Amino acid sequence: MGRWEPGARERLVVAAVDLFAEQGYDATTVAQIAERAGVTKSTFFRHFPDKRELLAAGQETLSRLLAEGIAEAPRRATPLEAVAAGLERASSAMGPMNRELAPRVKAAIASCVELQERDALKTVTLAAAMTAALVARGLPDPTAALASELGVLAFKRGFAEWSDGDRDGEEELAGYVLSALEELRIASASLG
Amino acid sequence: MGRWEPGARERLVVAAVDLFAEQGYDATTVAQIAERAGVTKSTFFRHFPDKRELLAAGQETLSRLLAEGIAEAPRRATPLEAVAAGLERASSAMGPMNRELAPRVKAAIASCVELQERDALKTVTLAAAMTAALVARGLPDPTAALASELGVLAFKRGFAEWSDGDRDGEEELAGYVLSALEELRIASASLG
Repeated sequence: MGRWEPGARERLVVAAVDLFAEQGYDATTVAQIAERAGVTKSTFFRHFPDKRELLAAGQETLSRLLAEGIAEAPRRATPLEAVAAGLERASSAMGPMNRELAPRVKAAIASCVELQERDALKTVTLAAAMTAALVARGLPDPTAALASELGVLAFKRGFAEWSDGDRDGEEELAGYVLSALEELRIASASLG
Repeated sequence: MGRWEPGARERLVVAAVDLFAEQGYDATTVAQIAERAGVTKSTFFRHFPDKRELLAAGQETLSRLLAEGIAEAPRRATPLEAVAAGLERASSAMGPMNRELAPRVKAAIASCVELQERDALKTVTLAAAMTAALVARGLPDPTAALASELGVLAFKRGFAEWSDGDRDGEEELAGYVLSALEELRIASASLG
């Protein structure tokens, strides 16, 4: 894994994830997160509206990249090829820091219903962004909705494997996500 | 539509949905909901832990019925036939009251991020229940995950059409949900 030099935003996310893990989400205050990250509370609020949004950080960026990748896929791309283009674009936003933090983020979410809800809404939001981009390509609604669900599922499954991180020589998230999408494409033929 | 005689639990849901629509989710208190429903606050808390859970009411029942239907599907059923059995079982839990309330519930959710999050988690929970039941039938993981997503999507799409309620002579939710599943099955052949 490469090295990364965290700025204030990244330090805030790391501090929050550590504090959630150490003392629980409910017991953690914005003041504590800011202090641990070595910034002021007003710096916190320049980056995030509240502590809950910390873990959904990047949702807008991911949605935008998914939509752009889908929009710019070749005109004759199949629905899943367009989804793959979106996933590849979005995966490029995830670097070593995301990979390193992933197990702690997962543990924080698992320990707190409020974060599970926020995380679930993130999933729904990403699916909606993909569906809209696919409908804009002229796909009929059920196909667009279905292709988006495959895309979200591939992103989640690929991300989980990537953050477990034991595939030989594969460093980039995109490789994991596109393999997961291919696996789901194959599985779709055996639904009956 | 048939008539339904609401008990305390149903009256609480109706009162809450109306109050959320009239004055917003944040401004609505448990005391107001109980008063509108003509019950005490302790009756409220016998039925629900807090106001947020009101709209996720039924999540456990739906999860259980989905899982039971899938478990009891014929041994040789395809993945989607098993999902259809789960959806049919779960749909039977939804009656005229759910149909009548649906537009107001939808409006309440649309107006409030907190309820959108809760609703998203409900979706994730139902998918997880189906996936576990399909894996228990011996399906490989990606197929089970994918079949569940189709099931959740079919349930949502069928429910939306059912609550719009303009299909000739079709009263039961199950009919809408199974049509939606068939539509998605057909769409899955054109994913590329």
